[in-house]
Amino acid sequence: MAAYCSASWINLSGAKRVIKALVNGLFSESISINSRGLSYGDGLFETISIVNGSPEFIDFHLERLSSDCDRLRISCDINAIRRDIFSLLKHADGNRHVIKVLVTRAESGRGYKPTFNIVADRIVILDALAISDIRHSQLGVKLRLCNHRLGINADLAGIKHLSRLENVMARSEWSSLDIVEGLVMDSAGHVVEGTMSNVFLVKDGELQTPALHRCGVAGIMRRVILDQIAPSLQIKTRVKDLYLKDVFASEELFMCNSLIGIWPVVAIGCHHKTIGKLTRSIQGSLANKDFEGA
Amino acid sequence: MAAYCSASWINLSGAKRVIKALVNGLFSESISINSRGLSYGDGLFETISIVNGSPEFIDFHLERLSSDCDRLRISCDINAIRRDIFSLLKHADGNRHVIKVLVTRAESGRGYKPTFNIVADRIVILDALAISDIRHSQLGVKLRLCNHRLGINADLAGIKHLSRLENVMARSEWSSLDIVEGLVMDSAGHVVEGTMSNVFLVKDGELQTPALHRCGVAGIMRRVILDQIAPSLQIKTRVKDLYLKDVFASEELFMCNSLIGIWPVVAIGCHHKTIGKLTRSIQGSLANKDFEGA
Repeated sequence: MAAYCSASWINLSGAKRVIKALVNGLFSESISINSRGLSYGDGLFETISIVNGSPEFIDFHLERLSSDCDRLRISCDINAIRRDIFSLLKHADGNRHVIKVLVTRAESGRGYKPTFNIVADRIVILDALAISDIRHSQLGVKLRLCNHRLGINADLAGIKHLSRLENVMARSEWSSLDIVEGLVMDSAGHVVEGTMSNVFLVKDGELQTPALHRCGVAGIMRRVILDQIAPSLQIKTRVKDLYLKDVFASEELFMCNSLIGIWPVVAIGCHHKTIGKLTRSIQGSLANKDFEGA
Repeated sequence: MAAYCSASWINLSGAKRVIKALVNGLFSESISINSRGLSYGDGLFETISIVNGSPEFIDFHLERLSSDCDRLRISCDINAIRRDIFSLLKHADGNRHVIKVLVTRAESGRGYKPTFNIVADRIVILDALAISDIRHSQLGVKLRLCNHRLGINADLAGIKHLSRLENVMARSEWSSLDIVEGLVMDSAGHVVEGTMSNVFLVKDGELQTPALHRCGVAGIMRRVILDQIAPSLQIKTRVKDLYLKDVFASEELFMCNSLIGIWPVVAIGCHHKTIGKLTRSIQGSLANKDFEGA
Protein backbone atom coordinates (compact mmCIF):
# COMPACT_ATOMS: atom_id res chain seq x y z
CA MET A 1 0.00 0.00 0.00
CA ALA A 2 3.05 2.25 0.17
CA ALA A 3 2.43 3.52 -3.32
CA TYR A 4 -0.97 4.83 -2.33
CA CYS A 5 -1.43 8.44 -1.43
CA SER A 6 -1.41 8.84 2.34
CA ALA A 7 -4.21 11.39 2.18
CA SER A 8 -7.50 9.58 2.20
CA TRP A 9 -8.89 11.90 -0.41
CA ILE A 10 -7.42 14.27 -2.96
CA ASN A 11 -9.74 17.15 -3.49
CA LEU A 12 -9.13 19.49 -6.41
CA SER A 13 -11.31 22.27 -5.09
CA GLY A 14 -9.92 22.17 -1.55
CA ALA A 15 -13.34 22.66 0.01
CA LYS A 16 -13.48 21.85 3.73
CA ARG A 17 -16.66 21.98 5.73
CA VAL A 18 -17.18 18.99 7.99
CA ILE A 19 -16.67 19.41 11.73
CA LYS A 20 -16.76 15.71 12.55
CA ALA A 21 -18.12 12.73 10.70
CA LEU A 22 -18.74 9.09 11.48
CA VAL A 23 -18.65 6.47 8.76
CA ASN A 24 -20.15 3.25 10.05
CA GLY A 25 -19.52 4.56 13.56
CA LEU A 26 -15.83 5.43 13.16
CA PHE A 27 -14.37 8.87 12.60
CA SER A 28 -13.66 9.27 8.89
CA GLU A 29 -14.24 11.78 6.13
CA SER A 30 -14.06 9.43 3.18
CA ILE A 31 -15.91 6.57 1.61
CA SER A 32 -14.98 3.89 -0.87
CA ILE A 33 -15.03 4.74 -4.56
CA ASN A 34 -17.17 1.59 -4.87
CA SER A 35 -19.98 3.02 -2.76
CA ARG A 36 -23.31 2.47 -4.45
CA GLY A 37 -24.23 5.92 -3.20
CA LEU A 38 -21.56 7.35 -5.49
CA SER A 39 -21.94 4.89 -8.35
CA TYR A 40 -25.72 4.98 -8.68
CA GLY A 41 -27.18 7.50 -6.24
CA ASP A 42 -28.42 4.34 -4.50
CA GLY A 43 -29.20 5.62 -1.02
CA LEU A 44 -31.00 8.17 1.11
CA PHE A 45 -30.26 11.24 3.19
CA GLU A 46 -31.67 13.35 5.99
CA THR A 47 -30.78 16.90 6.97
CA ILE A 48 -31.49 17.57 10.64
CA SER A 49 -31.39 20.98 12.25
CA ILE A 50 -29.53 21.20 15.56
CA VAL A 51 -30.87 23.96 17.78
CA ASN A 52 -29.37 24.50 21.24
CA GLY A 53 -27.59 21.17 20.94
CA SER A 54 -30.78 19.26 20.24
CA PRO A 55 -31.73 17.57 16.93
CA GLU A 56 -35.12 18.92 15.89
CA PHE A 57 -37.84 16.45 14.91
CA ILE A 58 -35.34 13.59 15.08
CA ASP A 59 -38.07 10.99 15.47
CA PHE A 60 -39.78 12.19 12.30
CA HIS A 61 -36.44 12.17 10.43
CA LEU A 62 -35.57 8.64 11.52
CA GLU A 63 -39.10 7.44 10.85
CA ARG A 64 -38.93 8.76 7.28
CA LEU A 65 -35.46 7.27 6.80
CA SER A 66 -36.70 3.91 8.00
CA SER A 67 -39.80 4.05 5.84
CA ASP A 68 -37.85 5.16 2.74
CA CYS A 69 -35.31 2.37 3.36
CA ASP A 70 -38.19 -0.09 3.35
CA ARG A 71 -39.45 1.29 0.04
CA LEU A 72 -36.00 0.89 -1.55
CA ARG A 73 -35.40 -2.42 0.26
CA ILE A 74 -32.29 -0.97 1.92
CA SER A 75 -31.43 -2.69 5.21
CA CYS A 76 -30.44 0.04 7.66
CA ASP A 77 -29.52 0.14 11.36
CA ILE A 78 -31.62 3.11 12.51
CA ASN A 79 -30.57 2.71 16.15
CA ALA A 80 -26.91 2.94 15.18
CA ILE A 81 -27.65 6.15 13.27
CA ARG A 82 -29.41 7.61 16.31
CA ARG A 83 -26.35 6.74 18.42
CA ASP A 84 -24.02 8.32 15.84
CA ILE A 85 -26.06 11.52 15.84
CA PHE A 86 -25.96 11.92 19.61
CA SER A 87 -22.30 10.96 19.68
CA LEU A 88 -21.47 13.77 17.22
CA LEU A 89 -23.52 16.32 19.15
CA LYS A 90 -20.79 16.33 21.80
CA HIS A 91 -18.61 18.09 19.23
CA ALA A 92 -21.13 20.85 18.56
CA ASP A 93 -20.29 24.21 20.08
CA GLY A 94 -22.87 26.85 20.89
CA ASN A 95 -23.59 27.78 17.29
CA ARG A 96 -26.31 26.36 15.09
CA HIS A 97 -25.41 23.13 13.38
CA VAL A 98 -26.78 20.66 10.94
CA ILE A 99 -26.50 16.89 10.97
CA LYS A 100 -26.53 15.23 7.59
CA VAL A 101 -27.20 11.49 7.52
CA LEU A 102 -26.44 9.49 4.40
CA VAL A 103 -27.36 5.85 4.01
CA THR A 104 -26.05 4.02 0.99
CA ARG A 105 -26.87 0.50 -0.02
CA ALA A 106 -23.78 -1.51 0.84
CA GLU A 107 -21.44 -2.48 -1.95
CA SER A 108 -22.12 -5.58 -3.93
CA GLY A 109 -20.69 -6.78 -7.22
CA ARG A 110 -20.44 -4.40 -10.15
CA GLY A 111 -23.71 -3.51 -11.83
CA TYR A 112 -27.09 -2.13 -10.86
CA LYS A 113 -28.37 -5.30 -9.19
CA PRO A 114 -28.70 -4.63 -5.46
CA THR A 115 -28.04 -7.13 -2.69
CA PHE A 116 -30.86 -6.99 -0.17
CA ASN A 117 -29.46 -8.81 2.84
CA ILE A 118 -26.46 -6.57 3.63
CA VAL A 119 -26.70 -3.76 6.17
CA ALA A 120 -26.32 -0.35 4.52
CA ASP A 121 -23.31 1.90 5.05
CA ARG A 122 -24.11 4.93 7.20
CA ILE A 123 -22.46 8.32 7.13
CA VAL A 124 -23.33 10.91 9.78
CA ILE A 125 -21.86 14.39 9.40
CA LEU A 126 -21.85 17.30 11.82
CA ASP A 127 -21.56 20.55 9.94
CA ALA A 128 -21.71 24.21 10.91
CA LEU A 129 -24.83 25.83 9.52
CA ALA A 130 -24.28 28.90 7.44
CA ILE A 131 -26.97 31.12 8.88
CA SER A 132 -29.34 32.07 6.12
CA ASP A 133 -30.54 35.62 6.07
CA ILE A 134 -33.13 35.71 8.87
CA ARG A 135 -34.80 38.50 6.94
CA HIS A 136 -36.06 35.79 4.58
CA SER A 137 -38.47 34.62 7.28
CA GLN A 138 -39.49 38.16 8.15
CA LEU A 139 -39.55 39.97 4.81
CA GLY A 140 -40.25 37.00 2.54
CA VAL A 141 -38.42 35.69 -0.51
CA LYS A 142 -38.61 35.92 -4.28
CA LEU A 143 -38.98 32.71 -6.28
CA ARG A 144 -37.95 31.77 -9.76
CA LEU A 145 -40.28 29.57 -11.75
CA CYS A 146 -37.81 26.90 -12.88
CA ASN A 147 -37.70 25.72 -16.49
CA HIS A 148 -36.41 22.34 -15.40
CA ARG A 149 -39.21 19.81 -14.87
CA LEU A 150 -39.16 16.76 -12.60
CA GLY A 151 -39.63 13.33 -14.16
CA ILE A 152 -42.64 11.35 -12.99
CA ASN A 153 -41.73 8.17 -11.14
CA ALA A 154 -44.28 6.87 -8.67
CA ASP A 155 -41.89 4.26 -7.22
CA LEU A 156 -39.45 6.96 -6.10
CA ALA A 157 -41.95 9.74 -5.35
CA GLY A 158 -41.64 11.33 -1.92
CA ILE A 159 -38.33 9.61 -1.13
CA LYS A 160 -35.32 11.74 -0.13
CA HIS A 161 -32.90 9.63 -2.17
CA LEU A 162 -29.41 10.43 -3.41
CA SER A 163 -30.27 10.60 -7.14
CA ARG A 164 -30.90 14.33 -7.08
CA LEU A 165 -29.47 15.60 -10.35
CA GLU A 166 -32.88 17.06 -11.22
CA ASN A 167 -32.70 19.33 -8.17
CA VAL A 168 -29.16 20.36 -9.11
CA MET A 169 -30.33 21.24 -12.62
CA ALA A 170 -33.25 23.28 -11.33
CA ARG A 171 -31.05 25.08 -8.79
CA SER A 172 -28.45 25.83 -11.48
CA GLU A 173 -30.87 28.04 -13.40
CA TRP A 174 -30.14 31.23 -11.47
CA SER A 175 -27.27 32.86 -9.61
CA SER A 176 -28.84 36.17 -8.63
CA LEU A 177 -28.81 36.56 -4.85
CA ASP A 178 -32.12 38.37 -5.20
CA ILE A 179 -33.82 35.05 -6.02
CA VAL A 180 -33.77 32.73 -3.04
CA GLU A 181 -35.60 29.62 -4.20
CA GLY A 182 -37.10 28.08 -7.33
CA LEU A 183 -40.54 26.57 -7.80
CA VAL A 184 -40.44 23.31 -9.73
CA MET A 185 -43.14 21.54 -11.74
CA ASP A 186 -43.25 17.98 -13.06
CA SER A 187 -43.20 17.00 -16.72
CA ALA A 188 -47.04 16.96 -16.75
CA GLY A 189 -47.31 20.52 -15.39
CA HIS A 190 -48.20 19.89 -11.75
CA VAL A 191 -46.57 22.18 -9.19
CA VAL A 192 -44.42 19.92 -6.98
CA GLU A 193 -42.01 21.71 -4.66
CA GLY A 194 -39.08 24.11 -4.36
CA THR A 195 -35.61 22.98 -5.39
CA MET A 196 -34.81 22.32 -1.69
CA SER A 197 -38.13 22.93 0.03
CA ASN A 198 -41.83 22.12 0.00
CA VAL A 199 -44.50 24.61 -0.97
CA PHE A 200 -47.79 25.54 0.69
CA LEU A 201 -50.49 27.93 -0.43
CA VAL A 202 -53.58 29.35 1.22
CA LYS A 203 -56.89 29.39 -0.64
CA ASP A 204 -60.26 30.23 0.93
CA GLY A 205 -58.63 30.01 4.34
CA GLU A 206 -57.46 26.44 3.66
CA LEU A 207 -53.83 25.34 3.62
CA GLN A 208 -52.96 23.35 0.50
CA THR A 209 -49.78 21.56 -0.57
CA PRO A 210 -49.04 19.40 -3.63
CA ALA A 211 -49.66 15.67 -3.52
CA LEU A 212 -46.32 13.92 -3.95
CA HIS A 213 -47.34 10.58 -5.48
CA ARG A 214 -45.64 11.32 -8.82
CA CYS A 215 -42.34 12.90 -7.72
CA GLY A 216 -40.86 15.29 -5.17
CA VAL A 217 -39.59 14.90 -1.62
CA ALA A 218 -42.02 14.60 1.30
CA GLY A 219 -40.21 16.97 3.68
CA ILE A 220 -40.24 16.74 7.46
CA MET A 221 -41.30 20.38 7.93
CA ARG A 222 -44.17 19.69 5.51
CA ARG A 223 -45.24 16.84 7.77
CA VAL A 224 -44.85 18.97 10.93
CA ILE A 225 -47.10 21.64 9.41
CA LEU A 226 -49.71 19.18 8.11
CA ASP A 227 -49.81 16.85 11.12
CA GLN A 228 -49.09 19.15 14.03
CA ILE A 229 -49.09 22.90 13.50
CA ALA A 230 -52.18 23.21 11.27
CA PRO A 231 -54.37 21.04 13.53
CA SER A 232 -53.16 22.93 16.61
CA LEU A 233 -54.19 26.19 14.93
CA GLN A 234 -57.44 24.66 13.65
CA ILE A 235 -56.43 25.34 10.04
CA LYS A 236 -57.98 23.03 7.45
CA THR A 237 -55.42 21.30 5.22
CA ARG A 238 -55.65 19.64 1.84
CA VAL A 239 -53.03 17.62 -0.06
CA LYS A 240 -53.94 17.69 -3.75
CA ASP A 241 -52.76 18.25 -7.29
CA LEU A 242 -51.89 21.92 -7.70
CA TYR A 243 -51.16 23.95 -10.81
CA LEU A 244 -49.54 27.29 -11.55
CA LYS A 245 -52.95 28.95 -11.72
CA ASP A 246 -53.51 27.85 -8.11
CA VAL A 247 -50.19 29.36 -7.10
CA PHE A 248 -50.96 32.67 -8.80
CA ALA A 249 -54.51 32.76 -7.43
CA SER A 250 -53.45 31.85 -3.87
CA GLU A 251 -54.01 34.27 -1.00
CA GLU A 252 -50.72 33.30 0.64
CA LEU A 253 -47.69 31.26 -0.42
CA PHE A 254 -44.75 29.92 1.55
CA MET A 255 -41.82 27.49 1.29
CA CYS A 256 -40.52 25.31 4.11
CA ASN A 257 -37.88 22.81 5.11
CA SER A 258 -36.17 21.54 8.26
CA LEU A 259 -33.35 24.08 8.14
CA ILE A 260 -35.03 27.26 6.90
CA GLY A 261 -38.30 26.81 8.74
CA ILE A 262 -40.89 28.85 6.82
CA TRP A 263 -40.19 31.45 4.17
CA PRO A 264 -43.16 33.54 3.01
CA VAL A 265 -43.11 34.20 -0.74
CA VAL A 266 -43.44 37.81 -1.88
CA ALA A 267 -42.87 37.26 -5.58
CA ILE A 268 -42.72 34.48 -8.14
CA GLY A 269 -41.16 35.85 -11.29
CA CYS A 270 -42.90 39.17 -11.88
CA HIS A 271 -46.03 38.05 -10.03
CA HIS A 272 -46.24 39.61 -6.55
CA LYS A 273 -47.73 38.07 -3.40
CA THR A 274 -48.60 39.43 0.03
CA ILE A 275 -47.48 37.83 3.28
CA GLY A 276 -50.64 36.71 5.01
CA LYS A 277 -52.00 36.00 8.47
CA LEU A 278 -52.02 32.20 8.22
CA THR A 279 -48.36 32.16 7.22
CA ARG A 280 -47.51 34.40 10.16
CA SER A 281 -49.47 32.30 12.62
CA ILE A 282 -47.80 29.09 11.41
CA GLN A 283 -44.39 30.76 11.71
CA GLY A 284 -45.30 31.89 15.23
CA SER A 285 -46.42 28.42 16.23
CA LEU A 286 -43.21 26.90 14.89
CA ALA A 287 -41.04 29.48 16.66
CA ASN A 288 -42.85 29.03 19.97
CA LYS A 289 -43.23 25.28 19.49
CA ASP A 290 -46.75 25.52 20.87
CA PHE A 291 -48.05 22.41 19.16
CA GLU A 292 -48.31 18.79 20.20
CA GLY A 293 -45.08 16.81 19.75
CA ALA A 294 -42.84 19.88 19.51
CA MET B 1 -6.10 13.48 13.22
CA ALA B 2 -4.97 10.70 15.58
CA ALA B 3 -8.54 10.05 16.65
CA TYR B 4 -9.52 9.26 13.10
CA CYS B 5 -9.62 5.71 11.90
CA SER B 6 -6.44 4.89 10.01
CA ALA B 7 -8.34 2.96 7.38
CA SER B 8 -9.51 5.33 4.70
CA TRP B 9 -12.84 3.60 4.53
CA ILE B 10 -14.82 1.36 6.81
CA ASN B 11 -16.87 -0.99 4.75
CA LEU B 12 -19.55 -3.08 6.44
CA SER B 13 -19.90 -5.55 3.62
CA GLY B 14 -16.17 -6.07 3.12
CA ALA B 15 -16.49 -6.09 -0.66
CA LYS B 16 -13.18 -5.69 -2.51
CA ARG B 17 -12.94 -5.43 -6.25
CA VAL B 18 -10.67 -2.67 -7.49
CA ILE B 19 -7.25 -3.58 -8.91
CA LYS B 20 -5.92 -0.01 -8.97
CA ALA B 21 -7.63 3.34 -8.94
CA LEU B 22 -6.58 6.93 -9.46
CA VAL B 23 -8.43 9.77 -7.77
CA ASN B 24 -7.42 13.03 -9.36
CA GLY B 25 -4.32 11.29 -10.67
CA LEU B 26 -3.12 9.80 -7.36
CA PHE B 27 -3.54 6.23 -6.19
CA SER B 28 -6.49 6.11 -3.81
CA GLU B 29 -9.62 4.06 -3.26
CA SER B 30 -11.68 6.63 -1.41
CA ILE B 31 -13.37 9.94 -1.94
CA SER B 32 -14.62 12.65 0.36
CA ILE B 33 -18.00 12.23 2.01
CA ASN B 34 -18.69 15.74 0.65
CA SER B 35 -18.42 14.61 -2.98
CA ARG B 36 -21.34 15.93 -4.98
CA GLY B 37 -21.32 12.58 -6.75
CA LEU B 38 -22.31 10.95 -3.47
CA SER B 39 -24.53 13.73 -2.16
CA TYR B 40 -26.59 14.36 -5.27
CA GLY B 41 -25.60 11.91 -8.01
CA ASP B 42 -24.09 15.03 -9.59
CA GLY B 43 -21.67 13.55 -12.08
CA LEU B 44 -21.12 11.14 -14.94
CA PHE B 45 -19.52 7.80 -15.65
CA GLU B 46 -18.13 5.68 -18.46
CA THR B 47 -17.50 1.94 -18.54
CA ILE B 48 -14.77 1.03 -21.00
CA SER B 49 -13.93 -2.50 -22.07
CA ILE B 50 -10.23 -3.39 -22.08
CA VAL B 51 -9.42 -6.10 -24.61
CA ASN B 52 -5.83 -7.26 -25.05
CA GLY B 53 -4.68 -4.29 -23.01
CA SER B 54 -6.41 -1.77 -25.23
CA PRO B 55 -9.41 0.41 -24.27
CA GLU B 56 -12.14 -0.21 -26.85
CA PHE B 57 -13.81 2.80 -28.47
CA ILE B 58 -11.99 5.13 -26.08
CA ASP B 59 -12.44 8.14 -28.37
CA PHE B 60 -16.21 7.60 -28.43
CA HIS B 61 -16.27 7.22 -24.63
CA LEU B 62 -14.28 10.40 -24.02
CA GLU B 63 -16.30 12.28 -26.65
CA ARG B 64 -19.54 11.35 -24.90
CA LEU B 65 -18.08 12.21 -21.50
CA SER B 66 -17.02 15.61 -22.79
CA SER B 67 -20.35 16.27 -24.45
CA ASP B 68 -22.34 15.16 -21.37
CA CYS B 69 -20.13 17.36 -19.17
CA ASP B 70 -21.04 20.29 -21.41
CA ARG B 71 -24.74 19.50 -21.03
CA LEU B 72 -24.44 19.44 -17.22
CA ARG B 73 -21.98 22.37 -17.22
CA ILE B 74 -19.36 20.23 -15.49
CA SER B 75 -15.82 21.40 -16.16
CA CYS B 76 -13.71 18.30 -16.79
CA ASP B 77 -10.09 17.65 -17.80
CA ILE B 78 -10.59 15.00 -20.48
CA ASN B 79 -6.87 14.80 -21.30
CA ALA B 80 -6.08 14.01 -17.67
CA ILE B 81 -8.65 11.22 -17.74
CA ARG B 82 -7.09 9.78 -20.88
CA ARG B 83 -3.67 9.87 -19.17
CA ASP B 84 -5.12 8.18 -16.06
CA ILE B 85 -6.64 5.41 -18.18
CA PHE B 86 -3.39 4.60 -19.97
CA SER B 87 -1.46 4.86 -16.73
CA LEU B 88 -3.70 2.23 -15.11
CA LEU B 89 -3.46 -0.09 -18.10
CA LYS B 90 0.12 -0.87 -17.03
CA HIS B 91 -1.42 -2.71 -14.07
CA ALA B 92 -3.67 -4.89 -16.23
CA ASP B 93 -2.54 -8.47 -16.61
CA GLY B 94 -3.52 -10.71 -19.51
CA ASN B 95 -7.15 -11.09 -18.47
CA ARG B 96 -10.08 -8.98 -19.60
CA HIS B 97 -10.55 -5.80 -17.66
CA VAL B 98 -12.86 -2.87 -17.40
CA ILE B 99 -12.03 0.76 -16.77
CA LYS B 100 -14.68 2.76 -14.98
CA VAL B 101 -14.37 6.52 -15.13
CA LEU B 102 -16.38 8.69 -12.74
CA VAL B 103 -16.48 12.45 -12.98
CA THR B 104 -18.17 14.32 -10.16
CA ARG B 105 -18.80 18.02 -10.01
CA ALA B 106 -16.25 19.33 -7.54
CA GLU B 107 -17.41 20.18 -4.06
CA SER B 108 -18.88 23.55 -3.35
CA GLY B 109 -20.87 24.81 -0.39
CA ARG B 110 -23.72 22.75 1.01
CA GLY B 111 -26.86 22.63 -1.10
CA TYR B 112 -27.83 21.80 -4.65
CA LYS B 113 -26.41 24.95 -6.24
CA PRO B 114 -23.45 23.96 -8.40
CA THR B 115 -20.30 25.98 -8.92
CA PHE B 116 -19.43 26.08 -12.59
CA ASN B 117 -15.82 27.28 -12.65
CA ILE B 118 -14.17 24.47 -10.66
CA VAL B 119 -12.57 21.49 -12.40
CA ALA B 120 -14.45 18.27 -11.64
CA ASP B 121 -12.99 15.48 -9.53
CA ARG B 122 -12.04 12.42 -11.58
CA ILE B 123 -11.95 8.81 -10.48
CA VAL B 124 -10.52 6.16 -12.80
CA ILE B 125 -10.78 2.54 -11.71
CA LEU B 126 -9.20 -0.57 -13.20
CA ASP B 127 -11.26 -3.61 -12.37
CA ALA B 128 -11.17 -7.26 -13.38
CA LEU B 129 -14.11 -8.13 -15.57
CA ALA B 130 -16.21 -11.02 -14.40
CA ILE B 131 -16.62 -12.84 -17.67
CA SER B 132 -20.29 -13.06 -18.47
CA ASP B 133 -21.52 -16.31 -19.88
CA ILE B 134 -20.33 -16.24 -23.49
CA ARG B 135 -23.27 -18.46 -24.30
CA HIS B 136 -25.42 -15.33 -23.96
CA SER B 137 -23.98 -14.06 -27.24
CA GLN B 138 -24.33 -17.41 -28.92
CA LEU B 139 -27.58 -18.82 -27.55
CA GLY B 140 -29.34 -15.54 -26.72
CA VAL B 141 -30.90 -14.26 -23.51
CA LYS B 142 -34.29 -14.06 -21.88
CA LEU B 143 -35.63 -10.63 -20.88
CA ARG B 144 -37.99 -9.53 -18.17
CA LEU B 145 -40.43 -6.75 -19.01
CA CYS B 146 -39.77 -4.46 -16.04
CA ASN B 147 -42.64 -2.95 -14.06
CA HIS B 148 -40.49 0.03 -13.10
CA ARG B 149 -40.88 2.93 -15.53
CA LEU B 150 -38.33 5.68 -16.28
CA GLY B 151 -39.28 9.28 -15.55
CA ILE B 152 -39.32 11.63 -18.53
CA ASN B 153 -36.71 14.37 -18.29
CA ALA B 154 -35.54 15.86 -21.58
CA ASP B 155 -32.68 17.81 -19.94
CA LEU B 156 -31.08 14.62 -18.65
CA ALA B 157 -32.09 12.27 -21.48
CA GLY B 158 -29.25 10.30 -23.05
CA ILE B 159 -26.73 11.30 -20.37
CA LYS B 160 -24.83 8.57 -18.47
CA HIS B 161 -25.10 10.41 -15.15
CA LEU B 162 -24.70 9.12 -11.61
CA SER B 163 -28.38 9.52 -10.56
CA ARG B 164 -29.28 5.97 -11.53
CA LEU B 165 -31.68 4.82 -8.84
CA GLU B 166 -34.27 4.09 -11.54
CA ASN B 167 -31.95 1.52 -13.09
CA VAL B 168 -31.32 -0.02 -9.67
CA MET B 169 -35.06 -0.29 -9.08
CA ALA B 170 -35.65 -1.90 -12.47
CA ARG B 171 -32.75 -4.33 -11.97
CA SER B 172 -34.01 -5.24 -8.49
CA GLU B 173 -37.20 -6.76 -9.90
CA TRP B 174 -35.76 -10.22 -10.53
CA SER B 175 -33.12 -12.51 -9.13
CA SER B 176 -33.58 -15.60 -11.32
CA LEU B 177 -30.36 -16.38 -13.17
CA ASP B 178 -32.52 -17.52 -16.07
CA ILE B 179 -33.44 -13.87 -16.77
CA VAL B 180 -30.40 -11.93 -17.94
CA GLU B 181 -31.69 -8.43 -18.64
CA GLY B 182 -34.84 -6.34 -18.26
CA LEU B 183 -36.58 -4.19 -20.85
CA VAL B 184 -37.62 -0.80 -19.48
CA MET B 185 -40.30 1.62 -20.65
CA ASP B 186 -40.85 5.27 -19.72
CA SER B 187 -43.83 6.60 -17.81
CA ALA B 188 -45.62 7.32 -21.10
CA GLY B 189 -45.21 3.75 -22.37
CA HIS B 190 -42.35 4.15 -24.85
CA VAL B 191 -39.80 1.34 -24.93
CA VAL B 192 -36.48 2.93 -23.89
CA GLU B 193 -33.65 0.49 -23.13
CA GLY B 194 -32.47 -2.40 -20.99
CA THR B 195 -31.55 -1.81 -17.35
CA MET B 196 -27.85 -1.70 -18.40
CA SER B 197 -28.01 -1.89 -22.17
CA ASN B 198 -29.60 -0.44 -25.28
CA VAL B 199 -32.13 -2.28 -27.39
CA PHE B 200 -32.38 -2.79 -31.16
CA LEU B 201 -35.03 -4.51 -33.19
CA VAL B 202 -35.30 -5.51 -36.82
CA LYS B 203 -38.45 -4.77 -38.80
CA ASP B 204 -38.81 -5.14 -42.57
CA GLY B 205 -35.06 -5.59 -42.81
CA GLU B 206 -34.47 -2.24 -41.08
CA LEU B 207 -32.62 -1.82 -37.78
CA GLN B 208 -34.56 0.30 -35.29
CA THR B 209 -33.70 1.60 -31.84
CA PRO B 210 -35.62 3.91 -29.49
CA ALA B 211 -35.14 7.66 -29.70
CA LEU B 212 -33.66 8.82 -26.39
CA HIS B 213 -34.84 12.43 -26.17
CA ARG B 214 -37.09 11.75 -23.14
CA CYS B 215 -34.88 9.49 -21.00
CA GLY B 216 -32.42 6.61 -21.22
CA VAL B 217 -28.68 6.39 -21.80
CA ALA B 218 -27.22 6.81 -25.28
CA GLY B 219 -24.75 3.93 -25.13
CA ILE B 220 -21.43 3.75 -26.97
CA MET B 221 -22.17 0.33 -28.50
CA ARG B 222 -25.48 1.77 -29.73
CA ARG B 223 -23.50 4.51 -31.47
CA VAL B 224 -20.96 2.04 -32.89
CA ILE B 225 -23.81 -0.01 -34.37
CA LEU B 226 -25.70 3.00 -35.75
CA ASP B 227 -22.73 4.97 -37.05
CA GLN B 228 -20.28 2.28 -38.08
CA ILE B 229 -21.42 -1.32 -38.22
CA ALA B 230 -24.83 -0.85 -39.85
CA PRO B 231 -23.50 1.45 -42.62
CA SER B 232 -20.60 -0.93 -43.27
CA LEU B 233 -23.12 -3.78 -43.71
CA GLN B 234 -25.48 -1.55 -45.72
CA ILE B 235 -28.26 -2.02 -43.16
CA LYS B 236 -30.80 0.80 -43.00
CA THR B 237 -31.23 2.25 -39.50
CA ARG B 238 -33.98 4.28 -37.90
CA VAL B 239 -34.05 6.00 -34.49
CA LYS B 240 -37.69 6.47 -33.49
CA ASP B 241 -40.32 6.08 -30.80
CA LEU B 242 -40.92 2.39 -30.24
CA TYR B 243 -43.65 0.60 -28.30
CA LEU B 244 -44.14 -2.89 -26.91
CA LYS B 245 -46.16 -3.89 -29.96
CA ASP B 246 -43.09 -3.09 -32.08
CA VAL B 247 -40.94 -5.26 -29.83
CA PHE B 248 -43.36 -8.17 -30.02
CA ALA B 249 -43.83 -7.79 -33.78
CA SER B 250 -40.10 -7.46 -34.50
CA GLU B 251 -38.30 -10.02 -36.64
CA GLU B 252 -35.18 -9.84 -34.47
CA LEU B 253 -34.33 -8.28 -31.13
CA PHE B 254 -31.01 -7.70 -29.38
CA MET B 255 -29.46 -5.82 -26.47
CA CYS B 256 -26.01 -4.23 -26.48
CA ASN B 257 -23.46 -2.37 -24.40
CA SER B 258 -19.72 -1.78 -24.33
CA LEU B 259 -18.96 -4.74 -22.09
CA ILE B 260 -21.38 -7.41 -23.29
CA GLY B 261 -21.22 -6.58 -26.98
CA ILE B 262 -24.45 -7.91 -28.50
CA TRP B 263 -26.90 -10.31 -26.86
CA PRO B 264 -29.66 -11.69 -29.11
CA VAL B 265 -33.00 -11.94 -27.32
CA VAL B 266 -34.79 -15.30 -27.44
CA ALA B 267 -37.65 -14.45 -25.08
CA ILE B 268 -39.28 -11.50 -23.40
CA GLY B 269 -41.54 -12.78 -20.66
CA CYS B 270 -43.46 -15.65 -22.23
CA HIS B 271 -43.10 -14.20 -25.74
CA HIS B 272 -40.46 -16.07 -27.76
CA LYS B 273 -38.14 -14.62 -30.43
CA THR B 274 -35.81 -16.14 -32.98
CA ILE B 275 -32.19 -15.12 -33.42
CA GLY B 276 -31.95 -13.65 -36.90
CA LYS B 277 -29.46 -13.09 -39.69
CA LEU B 278 -29.01 -9.34 -39.17
CA THR B 279 -28.16 -9.86 -35.51
CA ARG B 280 -25.63 -12.50 -36.43
CA SER B 281 -24.03 -10.36 -39.13
CA ILE B 282 -23.72 -7.39 -36.75
CA GLN B 283 -22.19 -9.67 -34.11
CA GLY B 284 -19.76 -10.99 -36.73
CA SER B 285 -18.80 -7.50 -37.82
CA LEU B 286 -18.19 -6.45 -34.21
CA ALA B 287 -16.10 -9.56 -33.48
CA ASN B 288 -14.00 -9.14 -36.59
CA LYS B 289 -13.89 -5.35 -36.30
CA ASP B 290 -14.38 -5.09 -40.05
CA PHE B 291 -15.92 -1.62 -40.01
CA GLU B 292 -14.52 1.84 -40.37
CA GLY B 293 -13.03 3.24 -37.16
CA ALA B 294 -12.75 -0.15 -35.42
